[in-house]
Amino acid sequence: MSTRILRNKLADGREILFFQDADSPAAPLAEDHRPAEPRPTGGQLRFDLLTGEWVAVATHRQSRTHLPIAAECPLCPSAPGRPTEIPVAGYEVVVFENRFPSLGPALGAVAADPSQNFAEAASESALTAPAHGRCEVVVFSSEHNGSFAGLGPARARTVIDAWANRTSELAAREGIEQVFVFENRGEEIGVTMNHPHGQIYAYPFVTPHTVITSARAAQHQRETGRPLMGDVLAFERCSGERMVLESAHFSAFVPYAARWPIEVHIVPHRQVLGIDDLDEAERDDLAHIYPEVLRRIDGLYSTPTPYIAAWHQAPVNCEDRSAEWMHLEITSPRRAENKLKFLAGSEAAMGAFVGDVSAEETAERLRAATPAHEDGRR
Amino acid sequence: MSTRILRNKLADGREILFFQDADSPAAPLAEDHRPAEPRPTGGQLRFDLLTGEWVAVATHRQSRTHLPIAAECPLCPSAPGRPTEIPVAGYEVVVFENRFPSLGPALGAVAADPSQNFAEAASESALTAPAHGRCEVVVFSSEHNGSFAGLGPARARTVIDAWANRTSELAAREGIEQVFVFENRGEEIGVTMNHPHGQIYAYPFVTPHTVITSARAAQHQRETGRPLMGDVLAFERCSGERMVLESAHFSAFVPYAARWPIEVHIVPHRQVLGIDDLDEAERDDLAHIYPEVLRRIDGLYSTPTPYIAAWHQAPVNCEDRSAEWMHLEITSPRRAENKLKFLAGSEAAMGAFVGDVSAEETAERLRAATPAHEDGRR
Repeated sequence: MSTRILRNKLADGREILFFQDADSPAAPLAEDHRPAEPRPTGGQLRFDLLTGEWVAVATHRQSRTHLPIAAECPLCPSAPGRPTEIPVAGYEVVVFENRFPSLGPALGAVAADPSQNFAEAASESALTAPAHGRCEVVVFSSEHNGSFAGLGPARARTVIDAWANRTSELAAREGIEQVFVFENRGEEIGVTMNHPHGQIYAYPFVTPHTVITSARAAQHQRETGRPLMGDVLAFERCSGERMVLESAHFSAFVPYAARWPIEVHIVPHRQVLGIDDLDEAERDDLAHIYPEVLRRIDGLYSTPTPYIAAWHQAPVNCEDRSAEWMHLEITSPRRAENKLKFLAGSEAAMGAFVGDVSAEETAERLRAATPAHEDGRR
Repeated sequence: MSTRILRNKLADGREILFFQDADSPAAPLAEDHRPAEPRPTGGQLRFDLLTGEWVAVATHRQSRTHLPIAAECPLCPSAPGRPTEIPVAGYEVVVFENRFPSLGPALGAVAADPSQNFAEAASESALTAPAHGRCEVVVFSSEHNGSFAGLGPARARTVIDAWANRTSELAAREGIEQVFVFENRGEEIGVTMNHPHGQIYAYPFVTPHTVITSARAAQHQRETGRPLMGDVLAFERCSGERMVLESAHFSAFVPYAARWPIEVHIVPHRQVLGIDDLDEAERDDLAHIYPEVLRRIDGLYSTPTPYIAAWHQAPVNCEDRSAEWMHLEITSPRRAENKLKFLAGSEAAMGAFVGDVSAEETAERLRAATPAHEDGRR
C-alpha cells in the first residue's frame, strides 16, 4: 500500500490518523492546542427481548453539531484563531474518533444474546451493557464543498486505503464483532455536516441485518458448496438487464429485488471478506468505478441526490469464512426531483418493502445518465 | 359484537364493508354509479437472495392519489356530482379494497423461501411470484378533519370491531400468512391522504420482522415454558418507570429498548393472538386507552405528531400458538418541535438503532403531558 499514514492524538486523547495521497510530499504533524475537554462517558446498550437486538442509547448525542456554516465546520483545516477537529492547515484524508460517539470510547465484549436461557424474570441489569465500540469520522478532503464522487481516482484510492486500514485495525480491537464503513450524504436524510466525509462504526455485536445475511450465506454454502454472492453475481452478470457498469474487478448493478427508488450494489468479482482484502489492482479499479456510479446517480436529477453508501463486510468472527463475500450498497430514497420515499407501516414496522419502480427501469436510467460534475450538479 | 356490518361491491368489483356504531340506526346501502374502470393488474414479488425476504414491486402505485384537497378527497362521503370511493352520503366506519394495492387483488400461496435447496443457478422465474394478498383501507370517520385520537370511545370501538372482523376474515383467505393492521399519520412521514384512515395488508408471507419475533417467542417458550411477552409485561409492570397508562386489561409503556424518540407499546394483560381474540370488555377498554395514548403523544408538541401505529398479531400459521401474544406499537420519528429522526447508515443499512433519548425520559414526558384535544392541537 503506497498510502503513508501518520498518527497523532487530539487534545482530549482521541486518535487521529492522516492518510496521504501516493504522490504527496510528507506533511509535518501539528499538535491540537485546544483545551482538553472531558470526553463524554459512553452510552448504553439495551437488549430488545422481542427482536433479540441491541439498541444503543446515546443521550449525549442530542447536543451534537448540526449543519454548521462553512466558517464553523469542524472538519475543515484549522486556521489561526480557529482550531477545528483537525489541527493542521491542510490535509488529504483524515480519520479520527468521533467526538459524540454512539459506541465507545471504551472497548470490551458484549454478550450476543443476554437472554439466552433466562431462567428467571428479566432484569434491567441483565438487559443492559455498556455501549462498547468505536465510532470514527473519515474526512475525504480538506475542501468543504465537494463529494466522494468528485475526488478523482488518486484521492478515492487514498480513502479506500484508509478504509482498509481501519477495517483491519478495528477488527483486531477488543470485543469488536463488525466493522461498518459508510457514508450518509444529503441533508434530506438527516446529515448534520456537509463537509465530504464518511463514518465507521465498529460494533461489539453483529448487526441485525448482518446476522440474517451471514446466516443465509452460511446456509447456502452448506447446501450448495458455493458462496451465495457468487451465485448472485453470476445471475446478474448473466442477465445483464440490471447492470450499470462493469470493470475488470467489479460489477455495479441494481439488484433484482431492489428496495429503494435508487439502489446500486458494487460487488467484487473475486471473493473477498473486507476492504482490507482487496489487492492493489482491485483498489485502483474501485477508485474509478465507485465515484463513476455516484456521478451517474447525481446525473439523474438537477441537484445532488441524498444517499447512504454502506459496506457490507464479513463479521469479525463469522460462522463460515468460505461463505462470506463483501459488497457495497448505495441506496437513495429519492423517487423524483422533489419526492422522497418514506418508510411507512409495511417497511418500518414489518420490514416488508414495497417498491414503486422496477430494478430494470432504474438500471436503464443509470446507464443512460450523463455523469454529473464533481460538485454533484449536472 | 354489537357492530352491524353491511357488505357491498364498488363499480369495479372491489369489496366494501360498512361498520355501524352500536347506537346507530341502520343505514341504507347505495350503489356505486361510477363507470367501472379496469382494476390494475397485480404487481410482483421478488425474492432477495441475500436476506431471504420478499420485496413487492408495485409500479402502478406511482400514480396514486397524493394529498388531495378536501374537496377532492376520495375517502369523504359521496355528494351529488362528486362520487368518491364511498358511494353514500354519510357513514361511520368503512373498509374497502385499496384501488392501488401493493398486494393483490389476486390471492394464492407463495413459497416462503423459493431458494431452498437451489441446486442450479438462480433464475428470474424462480425468484419471482405474483404479489398475491389484499390491501384494504379502513376509514375511521366521514369527517375529513380529525384523527383516531379524537374519535370518542364508541367510534373507536367500532373501528376495533372492524379490525377484528378483517383480521379473522382475511386470515381465512387463500394463501394469507399474516394480517397487518396499521395507521400512518402525518405528511412528514409520507402520508398521501389526510382523511382519518388506517390500512390493512394481508401478506402471502410472514413479514421479515415477524419471522424474527415469532421465532424468538417460540424459542423462549421452549426454553422457559412461558410466553415471551408475558415476561416483558411483567418486567415493565414491575419496574413501572416506563409505564404511561394502565387500565384493567392493557398496559401502555415505553419499551426498555425503545428505538424511536417516541415509542409506546400497548399490550393486553391476557395472552391473545389477534384483535379478533379480544373479548367485549377488552375491546371497550382498548377503545379508551388507545386514543388516550395518542392524545398524550399529541400533547407533547403544539402541532399533531406524525406516527405509525402497528398491530403485531400472530402469523396465521405460526410455529407455536402458545408462544404468541399480540401487541400494538406506536412509533414516531419526531425528536423535537421541528426535528425528525432520520434512519441513517447504522439503522437503514444494518438495522442497528441508535436512540437519542432514554425510554424513562419519554415515559415521564408522556405521563406529564396534557392530552391534546380531538384535532391533535393543544
